[in-house]
Amino acid sequence: MPSSAPLPQFDEVLDAAARIAPHARVTPVLRADALDAAAGASLVFKAEGLQHGGAFKFRGACNAVACLSAAEAANGVVTHSSGNHGAALGLAARLHSVTCHVVVPEGATAAKLALVAEQGAVLHRCAPTMAAREEHCARIQAATGATLVHPYADPRVIAGQGTATLELLAAAPGLDVLVVPVGGGGLAAGAALALSGRSPGTALVLAEPAGAADTARALRDGRREPGPAPDTVCDGLRADLGEPNFRILQALGAEVLTVDDADTLAAMRLLVARLKLLVEPSSAVALAAVLAHPARFAGRRVGIVLTGGNVDPAALPWAAA
Amino acid sequence: MPSSAPLPQFDEVLDAAARIAPHARVTPVLRADALDAAAGASLVFKAEGLQHGGAFKFRGACNAVACLSAAEAANGVVTHSSGNHGAALGLAARLHSVTCHVVVPEGATAAKLALVAEQGAVLHRCAPTMAAREEHCARIQAATGATLVHPYADPRVIAGQGTATLELLAAAPGLDVLVVPVGGGGLAAGAALALSGRSPGTALVLAEPAGAADTARALRDGRREPGPAPDTVCDGLRADLGEPNFRILQALGAEVLTVDDADTLAAMRLLVARLKLLVEPSSAVALAAVLAHPARFAGRRVGIVLTGGNVDPAALPWAAA
Repeated sequence: MPSSAPLPQFDEVLDAAARIAPHARVTPVLRADALDAAAGASLVFKAEGLQHGGAFKFRGACNAVACLSAAEAANGVVTHSSGNHGAALGLAARLHSVTCHVVVPEGATAAKLALVAEQGAVLHRCAPTMAAREEHCARIQAATGATLVHPYADPRVIAGQGTATLELLAAAPGLDVLVVPVGGGGLAAGAALALSGRSPGTALVLAEPAGAADTARALRDGRREPGPAPDTVCDGLRADLGEPNFRILQALGAEVLTVDDADTLAAMRLLVARLKLLVEPSSAVALAAVLAHPARFAGRRVGIVLTGGNVDPAALPWAAA
Repeated sequence: MPSSAPLPQFDEVLDAAARIAPHARVTPVLRADALDAAAGASLVFKAEGLQHGGAFKFRGACNAVACLSAAEAANGVVTHSSGNHGAALGLAARLHSVTCHVVVPEGATAAKLALVAEQGAVLHRCAPTMAAREEHCARIQAATGATLVHPYADPRVIAGQGTATLELLAAAPGLDVLVVPVGGGGLAAGAALALSGRSPGTALVLAEPAGAADTARALRDGRREPGPAPDTVCDGLRADLGEPNFRILQALGAEVLTVDDADTLAAMRLLVARLKLLVEPSSAVALAAVLAHPARFAGRRVGIVLTGGNVDPAALPWAAA
């Protein structure tokens, strides 16, 4: 998306909500006394692991597929993904009878790969670099005429992800703060749009792994710059912030808190023990950010989007401890 | 409770619902496409692991404590429990500023013991037999004047547990079948009462571990008889069916399906993977019963109460596999 392209607005989040309503699930909002006590705050969790495909990604993917013209739909869609977006696009495409190609980098988790394959998407393996992923996608586009649905730097995807925040605000009005994980920034930019139109008094906090903190740097420095290779257990948050995502977050404002992986894994375990919910490290990072900054959240009403739960229950990261 | 004592009726479930409403949580009802596909049926799950204390047991305990006279409340309550009821009664007592004694058999799981202690209950250890538990309780009653709140053979507890079914029926009307685990029969008898008044066309199916199948025998033979020592991974379902529980189930009718532990553990893993929800083996037995009898449930609308989630995430039963 060129930097001159128009950015999605709040109305496009509302349009997305109407478009995906026949297909997406209104996920539950959960809470637990023990987690409130641990945080010294009032926490509500949007359980997107219970969304179709096991992650919020279905929202953006479904909106993007529903936006295709008949001619575009006939040629299919293509994307690259370490897992959740690929599974989500595969499912959204299947529901709309559209062919879906997914380019998967080597090293993606087995649980996520299995989900992509389950949706009937055509899998293509590539090297685990963004350059290899994009080049492979371009080749498939050229060969098939398929429409690229980028995992996060796509206005239809951003608008779709914003619907998770709309639903959370409807279930838990009056939030002081909303905390969401940030990787490529699809969920984060969508959240910013949703808050701007529905709850402008709610502060947006982005939780980012310390080992993949490009968003913190970009918002601090006012520009996206290549950083060190990501090094984090949060496999869903290794992507660099997308261009439209950056512009939306810069325009609407967001604070970034960086989180150590050890804190993320402790939060993941706490969520299983206290909310009884299995979430990915890439989700737990948001609670970890809250627990690591008690003064920032003390006494506040805090919404947290638990983005997904696609983790192998037989390989929990503390099982070896 | 003597066998001539009047049994609780449907109205007492409604009374309990009003009595516990200020304290208990209306737990969410969840579903997952993959589980519907696995069962060939439409499944909805009442997630009682998200109840206060991590199990449905808070409902009955809270109703029992709320029923105490001021004089009774001043002397406290006492119970014996392998965990969830003890934690639930401790919490209900704390909310009503009542002293709570819990007799805990040796061998109770560490995760459950920690929950009991957390509620501020006074812990008393005893040998892991029902005789030792009851004798120890009687000693505490004699010394303190505390009121016994039996974990399941108590009409106030039975009525309270029935509220879980009331809520599930409200969220998912028109169920063909309701499946709940059975141990002592508090939840099962409460479910039977709730169905009798609210949805008499819904069949009640009880899921029971094959290694603790006294309820199946009792309903088949028309009498409760001592059987072999329970041998099951379902630590919450080792108790024998209570006397009033038996009479209610016999009067209102229920079918029992027995389940092998291996099937229960497979269902537990499936629930974590597909519903993202950590549940106890004593909960997973209900889904296992459905999956083991596909012809019985094919195409039906099935409600399942997932009774609790108090299991140590670091000691999941398949981690060693």
